[in-house]
Amino acid sequence: MKKPEIRKTVQLGLLGLGTVGSGVYEIIQREARAIEVKTGVHLVVRKICDKYLSQTRRAALPRGIFSPDADALLNDPTIDIVVELIGGIHPAKEIIEKALKRGKHVVTANKALLAEYGESIFGSAAKARREIGFEVSVCGAIPIIKSVKEGLISNNVSHFLGIVNGTCNYILTRMSQDGMDFDAALAEAQGQGFAERDPRLDVEGIDSAHKLAVLARLAFRSEIPFGAVFVEGIRGLSVKDIRYAKELGYTIKLLAIGKRLKKNLELRVHPTMLPDNHPLSGVRGVYNAVFLHADQAGDLLFYGKGAGKLPAASAVMSDIVDIAKKIARNDRTDALTGIRPGTIPVLPMKDLRSRYYLRFQVVDKPGVLGRIAQTLGRNHISILSVQQKESHDQKSVPVVFLTYEASERNLRSALARVDLLDDVTEKTVVLRVES
Amino acid sequence: MKKPEIRKTVQLGLLGLGTVGSGVYEIIQREARAIEVKTGVHLVVRKICDKYLSQTRRAALPRGIFSPDADALLNDPTIDIVVELIGGIHPAKEIIEKALKRGKHVVTANKALLAEYGESIFGSAAKARREIGFEVSVCGAIPIIKSVKEGLISNNVSHFLGIVNGTCNYILTRMSQDGMDFDAALAEAQGQGFAERDPRLDVEGIDSAHKLAVLARLAFRSEIPFGAVFVEGIRGLSVKDIRYAKELGYTIKLLAIGKRLKKNLELRVHPTMLPDNHPLSGVRGVYNAVFLHADQAGDLLFYGKGAGKLPAASAVMSDIVDIAKKIARNDRTDALTGIRPGTIPVLPMKDLRSRYYLRFQVVDKPGVLGRIAQTLGRNHISILSVQQKESHDQKSVPVVFLTYEASERNLRSALARVDLLDDVTEKTVVLRVES
Repeated sequence: MKKPEIRKTVQLGLLGLGTVGSGVYEIIQREARAIEVKTGVHLVVRKICDKYLSQTRRAALPRGIFSPDADALLNDPTIDIVVELIGGIHPAKEIIEKALKRGKHVVTANKALLAEYGESIFGSAAKARREIGFEVSVCGAIPIIKSVKEGLISNNVSHFLGIVNGTCNYILTRMSQDGMDFDAALAEAQGQGFAERDPRLDVEGIDSAHKLAVLARLAFRSEIPFGAVFVEGIRGLSVKDIRYAKELGYTIKLLAIGKRLKKNLELRVHPTMLPDNHPLSGVRGVYNAVFLHADQAGDLLFYGKGAGKLPAASAVMSDIVDIAKKIARNDRTDALTGIRPGTIPVLPMKDLRSRYYLRFQVVDKPGVLGRIAQTLGRNHISILSVQQKESHDQKSVPVVFLTYEASERNLRSALARVDLLDDVTEKTVVLRVES
Repeated sequence: MKKPEIRKTVQLGLLGLGTVGSGVYEIIQREARAIEVKTGVHLVVRKICDKYLSQTRRAALPRGIFSPDADALLNDPTIDIVVELIGGIHPAKEIIEKALKRGKHVVTANKALLAEYGESIFGSAAKARREIGFEVSVCGAIPIIKSVKEGLISNNVSHFLGIVNGTCNYILTRMSQDGMDFDAALAEAQGQGFAERDPRLDVEGIDSAHKLAVLARLAFRSEIPFGAVFVEGIRGLSVKDIRYAKELGYTIKLLAIGKRLKKNLELRVHPTMLPDNHPLSGVRGVYNAVFLHADQAGDLLFYGKGAGKLPAASAVMSDIVDIAKKIARNDRTDALTGIRPGTIPVLPMKDLRSRYYLRFQVVDKPGVLGRIAQTLGRNHISILSVQQKESHDQKSVPVVFLTYEASERNLRSALARVDLLDDVTEKTVVLRVES
């Protein structure tokens, strides 16, 4: 039998020389030799495309490497791997699909694209028998994709809880540790470069939902319709509730939650109360972490930096080297996406069963609490504890309830009634509790 | 060009059907179909060898699969991967070497063998162009080997701190949380099946040192002479020092510490004081965790089960599937061990610089503390804090010092003098402090 061809050099095309792209380029300049010693593969950046790169930065690149146009890269038959770091759905989707069709492998940081068009992109890759690397798309430097995809290959993941957005975790940490309100914490995060000028993708939970979709598809091996992910951000969160939660022994985190139930998936992003002794409660600042339960491995926790030039580039490099090793050794990629055909149906949010934290703002007079408790009871919501808080406001006092597990549907219909009561002065605050 | 041969079935020989071996066998029975769907590889257990397997258990195996003799497995040309789960240095070493020579790949849980003969085993594998999988040898279910080897491929690891022995961590947790003394906690761990009847490998730190050597070789890409690892176990540890440490805001853990200094490696296993807010301080019971710093990825923490039938088998499966995929796709393994030829010298323990906790037992009379402080000062050891503890013993009171960073050599010569003082009634307790 003829021996498969062995080659050493694998050529890359970098699309996007922003923060992460510069990190990748720098690491390859610095570590290519060490990577060759470790793996036998010699990495070469053949082309860099970036529409928005300044004249100065273009001039600093080696001659012949830069092109403003992605086609220069797609049309170059010597490029083996396209590293897509431009973000956004279009034209990233079209570029990736074209690259795959032309026989190139792809490494991408594009969680929005993978969340919303994952099945299509993975399908195209399988058809073309090419790889898609996306380690960096979830939790940056943490090798969570590799761990789920390869480390836990024989396991069935039953659920995961993730702090997957460093911006939100920074804001929540400042609110919780220093009593800052949301707007001040956000402004500070923006000042520190931890939040975008337009912070909506982060604080509204959409970025977390993207990562949830990418991770859930892999963990549960199901198609994930992005629109079925429930998303609630942290913008409305009051520092008051963070304080009351703390008094009860809980920490509030924005979690991406994925659960495999018997017949359904739970896929939801929302501020969540976690007991202080939960491993995720101690994750502070811009750090990310994923807590995961698998049937054989049991509980696992992964913690690290979710973003930043070199942490993100480290994850991109891991994908590049994995794929480069396969290319160099002539390993044919199989045509498997690992996703089961069809979708495990996502549980409608109203069918969720959860424990709840409820803060009612009520007029401080006899009978009010009784009427609330009665309404909850009629809707099959059992109360675990009640605390009336001190108030500096004469018109209204906060009363905090913790419930036993109840259905979201029952909770919603109870609150619809409670919020109509004359003695309830504000819309009730609801937080879901995980343990 | 001729297309490389693609085959689907990969055949395994299991050596050892103890706890982990049974787990692997069970998982393959249950999950082989799912693994085939995910990877395209069909795993078949072709032979099982176990000298000590009972007649009943032999009879329960499918006909023709069992052999009491490892040669039956080594001589079977249809076996692609030998899974060595018998432990111990001999005959495991000879079996693995024979398997490699005969063109078989190897997956092993044998940390003692890899720690003490790693260079030789990896060298044999590279020469034979065959793989050695050893994910399970460090921290069981945690994919730490894969993460360091592949996830952090472009990084330089600067240091790691690991809780890598569940038995010791269980004992320390009970001592710390419940004030049990060492013997009672050990007896309980034995009763629960968390400690061996002969607990020496665990409580004396040797098992941790084995794992340290395996991880350090990978993280620092250096040969690791096992004899150069400093090892101190937890047997001498007093519940008193655990309590005093707690009062100072520290938790005591048995850590496996690996550091890359400019010219040296630090490789040491010993009870270590960690600030309570360190991520490893919260790791309780039989859980394992590794905290690691890499130049690009930054700080990372991995947490999970270090032992147990299915957690360990999960890690073995991950190696089996990785290797099976390469076999099925005709991917030639390269002849690289990833280890730099030669050894980065290991720092002699006397050259260590560390902060220290010192507990002196002294006669409660004037001048004693002064003489101790003077001796420390003469040996260039600066004192951060001193606390005289209450004592129920009239003859001697405990005095706890925390030092600034000092050299172990200076500390040792200071203590040699202090312990000779008439008013010092016991050998001084020394704990190293990490932060």
